[in-house]
Amino acid sequence: MKEHNLAIDERTHYAYQLFCKRWTLLIVTVLLQGTQTFNGLTHIIHGISDRLLSERLKELEHAGILERHIQDGWPIHVSYTLTEKGYALEPLVKEIHNWCHTQLRTEEEP
Amino acid sequence: MKEHNLAIDERTHYAYQLFCKRWTLLIVTVLLQGTQTFNGLTHIIHGISDRLLSERLKELEHAGILERHIQDGWPIHVSYTLTEKGYALEPLVKEIHNWCHTQLRTEEEP
Repeated sequence: MKEHNLAIDERTHYAYQLFCKRWTLLIVTVLLQGTQTFNGLTHIIHGISDRLLSERLKELEHAGILERHIQDGWPIHVSYTLTEKGYALEPLVKEIHNWCHTQLRTEEEP
Repeated sequence: MKEHNLAIDERTHYAYQLFCKRWTLLIVTVLLQGTQTFNGLTHIIHGISDRLLSERLKELEHAGILERHIQDGWPIHVSYTLTEKGYALEPLVKEIHNWCHTQLRTEEEP
């Protein structure tokens, strides 16, 4: 039963490829807390380059996990919001945090 | 409350860096189903190179998520088993699979 549940089929393989990339789940975690602009994301996620953030946002948009909203103006205002499919990642993200809080000691990791 | 839960501190940042790498969680998923040898892992995980598998296994061993067992003989038999900290990732992995089964259509993804 356990083996059946964790079988790796095309869908799960796709998801592992999507999520097992640097920054991807961190971007999702930030957006679970509300809509963000590109600059907002770069401020919250320390160390990410504009190029990589842009690439990851495009991948997540293509996967239907977030939506990009463009508001005309000067300058143009671009913001990113999770879709229903994106918000459905909340239990997964919570499990990452649960694991950290139960399995890692504060002083343990750099 | 939600924001507090998903706050990114040093521990969670460390975990995102550890898990958001190609193949890492897929290796964990396979090992959740039992001990494997290096060759067993390369057979199950299609497309991973020996070099990358070796690198990921070392990272996971260093993080205390798996243990490497060496059994003397000809040839030497090396196997990999999750630790308690590794088995504690099961709820996280299950959430990846839940997300796939509820949010992705079979025909949707390559």
